[in-house]
Amino acid sequence: MKTNNSLQKELSLVKNLIKNEIIEEDTISELYNYIFKSNGKRLRAQLSLIASSPNKRKNKSRLKLASIIELLHTATLIHDDVVDQSQTRRGVKSVNNVWSNTHGVLIGDYIYSKAFILMVQIGDIKILKELANATNDISKGELIQLDALQNTSITLSKLENISYYKTGRLFEAAAKSGAMLANKDKKYESNISKCAKNLGILFQIKDDLLDYSLDEKVIGKPVFQDLKEGKITYPFYFAYRNANKKQKNQLQTMLGKKKQNIKSAYNMIKDLNGFEETEILASKYFDKAITHANLIKNKHINQEVLKLVNSALYREK
Amino acid sequence: MKTNNSLQKELSLVKNLIKNEIIEEDTISELYNYIFKSNGKRLRAQLSLIASSPNKRKNKSRLKLASIIELLHTATLIHDDVVDQSQTRRGVKSVNNVWSNTHGVLIGDYIYSKAFILMVQIGDIKILKELANATNDISKGELIQLDALQNTSITLSKLENISYYKTGRLFEAAAKSGAMLANKDKKYESNISKCAKNLGILFQIKDDLLDYSLDEKVIGKPVFQDLKEGKITYPFYFAYRNANKKQKNQLQTMLGKKKQNIKSAYNMIKDLNGFEETEILASKYFDKAITHANLIKNKHINQEVLKLVNSALYREK
Repeated sequence: MKTNNSLQKELSLVKNLIKNEIIEEDTISELYNYIFKSNGKRLRAQLSLIASSPNKRKNKSRLKLASIIELLHTATLIHDDVVDQSQTRRGVKSVNNVWSNTHGVLIGDYIYSKAFILMVQIGDIKILKELANATNDISKGELIQLDALQNTSITLSKLENISYYKTGRLFEAAAKSGAMLANKDKKYESNISKCAKNLGILFQIKDDLLDYSLDEKVIGKPVFQDLKEGKITYPFYFAYRNANKKQKNQLQTMLGKKKQNIKSAYNMIKDLNGFEETEILASKYFDKAITHANLIKNKHINQEVLKLVNSALYREK
Repeated sequence: MKTNNSLQKELSLVKNLIKNEIIEEDTISELYNYIFKSNGKRLRAQLSLIASSPNKRKNKSRLKLASIIELLHTATLIHDDVVDQSQTRRGVKSVNNVWSNTHGVLIGDYIYSKAFILMVQIGDIKILKELANATNDISKGELIQLDALQNTSITLSKLENISYYKTGRLFEAAAKSGAMLANKDKKYESNISKCAKNLGILFQIKDDLLDYSLDEKVIGKPVFQDLKEGKITYPFYFAYRNANKKQKNQLQTMLGKKKQNIKSAYNMIKDLNGFEETEILASKYFDKAITHANLIKNKHINQEVLKLVNSALYREK
């Protein structure tokens, strides 16, 4: 049976594979080293490796698939940082900060296309289709979110859709394509995909909560960014829904303001139950993820997936 | 035999196919209409349709392939405009100008992934591989070009490489994947691909010359952009190579300066044979393209391709 230790070993093989794939031109390798030197949790790559683990004969393709997922995720992050003009990522400076927006756009494209080359190497049309659709959904999610900036009449279901598209979708694709590669039964594929989808949305909800942290040192990136950018996420959404007319006006004034009185914004959203209701929503997705995880018959995979779901609920950065 | 009229008809079918594929979300369709309302020459789509024309049984896939080529090209243009901060494209305002850089980055990603979905629908691994590699080469070309900004010691062969990657490569892939779809012989595939590659480089060289036009109304976009951005292209390269020390210093001062005395920059580059030598280089690629076009046995395809090559040499915008 696969231990968590062997998962770590596989993750470092994934890292090497990515490294060997990317280094060609000087500029690119320099950028590459920069992007991948920080140690993310590589949750999506883990999900992919776990989902494909029933088929050890295809180990080469399994590692390749996990690399693809990680590359797609990285390309999205780099373009996101350009879009949000973020100055840091995972505690280090973002690509657009160290180099330029131009580098951010182009290196993102470069990484996308590298992921695409690797997918073609795996050569499975069903997997290609799933990953193509996922990539499209992710950018659709980002566009919808952009369109919803400053829009205080946004619905909860629209917010949930955005979380699914921009985050849940790649979690889902990681698990689904992994399961496709494992070529087990349809039930397994469906259970692990649904679990991953809900895990991804949970992950995003917690991300939205963490953005409202009072101490940026704890989460390793600037806080209150969403509010400053005019991005309505769950804490703001619930607070606004619970606010009276005067409070609604106050909240509206905060939205999109670059200079914030963080402490007072925090207290207001807290008093209006913004955080509490977001936590309740998070538990809803946690429960869904757990339910689907427990439908997975393979005990080892069930345990590994439960670990990820639990770590997402209790994540503190 | 296919007439040019039928090629025009096919091009408008391609346009419809793209339209039907893209329109989903409101924002996206709005952006789409904007991007595609201008009438480009759709040279790359034409090349793809011509190259695949021996196999009329696969008409649906032929149109799809031409749409993919057009979508990939459009995504590249949109990201280019963000990168270059261009304010116009084909005589109309660019996406980043009408909306924002953010929209430019995201809609570019969205279009890339749509192209990718269509490729998977065609379902031919060889074609997927060619297009994945081409997409990667294009972004590699852009990154190398970015790295070469302001670098007056760049070599001619590096400049030619950049032209190949960022422009010739998609022309080549359009023809090659078209020929793959037609599934004729390897010789046909090789001849039309090589012709297209050289046609693409020729097209880029002429583009570089047009950027040094004195009258921006003629070409429908701002002129002297390359010089202003510090981008060394052929006219500057040759002029610099022919310059004495004093002139080299003058050229260096112009490079990357936002405010230019266009008339004096033009005259200097002209006097140093920058334009003449670029024209000679263009004829070299013209000759190569013609040579390969004439190796194509199918008379009709040979004629259609020759028309494109000629139009590229004599293009005035």
